Amino acid sequence: MSQFLSRRDLARLITRIENGEPDAQTTLNELYTHAGGARVIGITGAPGSGKSTLVAELGRELRARPNPPQVAIVAVDPSSPFSGGAILGDRIRMRDLFGDSGVFIRSMASRGALGGIAAATADVVTALDAAGYNFILIETVGAGQLEVDVARIAQTVIVVEAPGAGDEVQAVKAGILEIADIIVVNKADREDVAQTVSALQSALDLSPANGAPPSQDIHHGPPELTGSAGATPADERWKPPIIKVSALRREGIDELLAAAEQHHEYLETSGEGQRRTQRRAEADIVARLRELLLRHALAQLPPHDYARLVDAAAQRAIHPAQAAAALLAALHL
Amino acid sequence: MSQFLSRRDLARLITRIENGEPDAQTTLNELYTHAGGARVIGITGAPGSGKSTLVAELGRELRARPNPPQVAIVAVDPSSPFSGGAILGDRIRMRDLFGDSGVFIRSMASRGALGGIAAATADVVTALDAAGYNFILIETVGAGQLEVDVARIAQTVIVVEAPGAGDEVQAVKAGILEIADIIVVNKADREDVAQTVSALQSALDLSPANGAPPSQDIHHGPPELTGSAGATPADERWKPPIIKVSALRREGIDELLAAAEQHHEYLETSGEGQRRTQRRAEADIVARLRELLLRHALAQLPPHDYARLVDAAAQRAIHPAQAAAALLAALHL
Repeated sequence: MSQFLSRRDLARLITRIENGEPDAQTTLNELYTHAGGARVIGITGAPGSGKSTLVAELGRELRARPNPPQVAIVAVDPSSPFSGGAILGDRIRMRDLFGDSGVFIRSMASRGALGGIAAATADVVTALDAAGYNFILIETVGAGQLEVDVARIAQTVIVVEAPGAGDEVQAVKAGILEIADIIVVNKADREDVAQTVSALQSALDLSPANGAPPSQDIHHGPPELTGSAGATPADERWKPPIIKVSALRREGIDELLAAAEQHHEYLETSGEGQRRTQRRAEADIVARLRELLLRHALAQLPPHDYARLVDAAAQRAIHPAQAAAALLAALHL
Repeated sequence: MSQFLSRRDLARLITRIENGEPDAQTTLNELYTHAGGARVIGITGAPGSGKSTLVAELGRELRARPNPPQVAIVAVDPSSPFSGGAILGDRIRMRDLFGDSGVFIRSMASRGALGGIAAATADVVTALDAAGYNFILIETVGAGQLEVDVARIAQTVIVVEAPGAGDEVQAVKAGILEIADIIVVNKADREDVAQTVSALQSALDLSPANGAPPSQDIHHGPPELTGSAGATPADERWKPPIIKVSALRREGIDELLAAAEQHHEYLETSGEGQRRTQRRAEADIVARLRELLLRHALAQLPPHDYARLVDAAAQRAIHPAQAAAALLAALHL
């Protein structure tokens, strides 16, 4: 099944990526040029939205197709000290997937990877892609900057919401609706589902950024870097559909996969897919350059100067911004 | 009431900080040397945990004391397009606080501040501190990297949990327990409160990092930078208490403030407060240096080289890490 990597080599490579081993990069450089064929789908949502069950059902549905695709599932949990499948293995609904040789399942924890867990996840996706996996499902826990970063890795982002999770819609509060290509209201067997759908629809209607790329990049680079490849005109923009699903009852999974397929076609025909690829590459390069520059600078700076300026800022003799400017000046760039 | 800033000047300065106006820095450099006297308390928790109501009740309780302290409330919501109090003003339970001249309330949204919203929040706290506010309550929405960054600004971090919010305890899933100095189980009038307290206690008992500073710094700097000021021995470490509160019924607020007072005393007597100040200054400097270096580098790089390498990575001719390394080399540092 694998073009470039056995299952065993793949598992080892992922561990090396997670551990931030520098020699993994040589392998990744080679694999990167062979990757790019996989469909990468991100699934995110607040705790309790049932996204783990949904991911398992998506995997199962894909594997039940005629000529089933190879499916990889990556669960990203920065708060977890475990990795290598320990958490996922406990999930009852994923058990039969674990026995399927056409499915690769892995959970990732954050360790020492350069650029953080988002960069490590991008590298793991590269490895899975080059290894011949046709669908790569990335599940992220929580709702924050990590989700935005992971969204940049995925081609299609599914945001999962459970009905009645609070007096406010969680996705709206957490600001992750703007990264959604498809919105799933899970647990659609519950009675308060209509209210949640309507709240989500209102939020979508109000959001100017909706369907468009995020207008500002807080994390990966200064705003002036983004959007260099141009934006899609408003009338051609993708309107995220809201799809009712009951992952537990296996209802709505087909509709969700059909929506993902439509989004894929949109990306291909509108040119948005290519623009996203460009933006992703740029954000990745800038994130890595930022860390390289910092490491280089810290290695160059006389430790005494550094410690003295930290002390001065801690004692409120100077503002940290002044200390940073003094360090920049000391580098004589 | 204000030593260095009128209420009106303060509001204007905060707007300048939010907008990332460079000339605000001159004012901040001056104010920073006069700040450091305020008690800064961070309040975080998942959406629906009732932390907004809790923050309002903390403010009210502090203001009801004899010789009431000046209280500032800052709500940080990176997902919100609004700022300046628009959201907070809608909160019914905060209305009487808005009429109190000894209370300053402000919500912050993310804009163009160098170093992101965490750096902007740190600057706003500096301004409030220098202006003479004795207690600064920072409320953060969501549960992610932002909360960890904001936790570094606060001296005492309160994590708020509602009972029965899901089949798992949300704070545990989101990994924010490790930044907690005090854990609040809000809505303690509910019947499933004992179960939540017991789940939180188990999670605390299992966590080796608990009460200790985070062992790894994903966001602000390489791991080797942190902990330079030494760690607290295990037997002297703060054990985060779990406090049951009903903010809506105004029960448990006194106990919570007493726990915050105890934590403050712990910080003072153990030396941990000083170590936190040192780590905070270092993380702040490194975060700012990282952005300064990137801006400097992007201004130096020939735009043609930059665009060519981004294209090459987008077309999978080279890995983004190779592109970043090539850019670093082109800088001739």
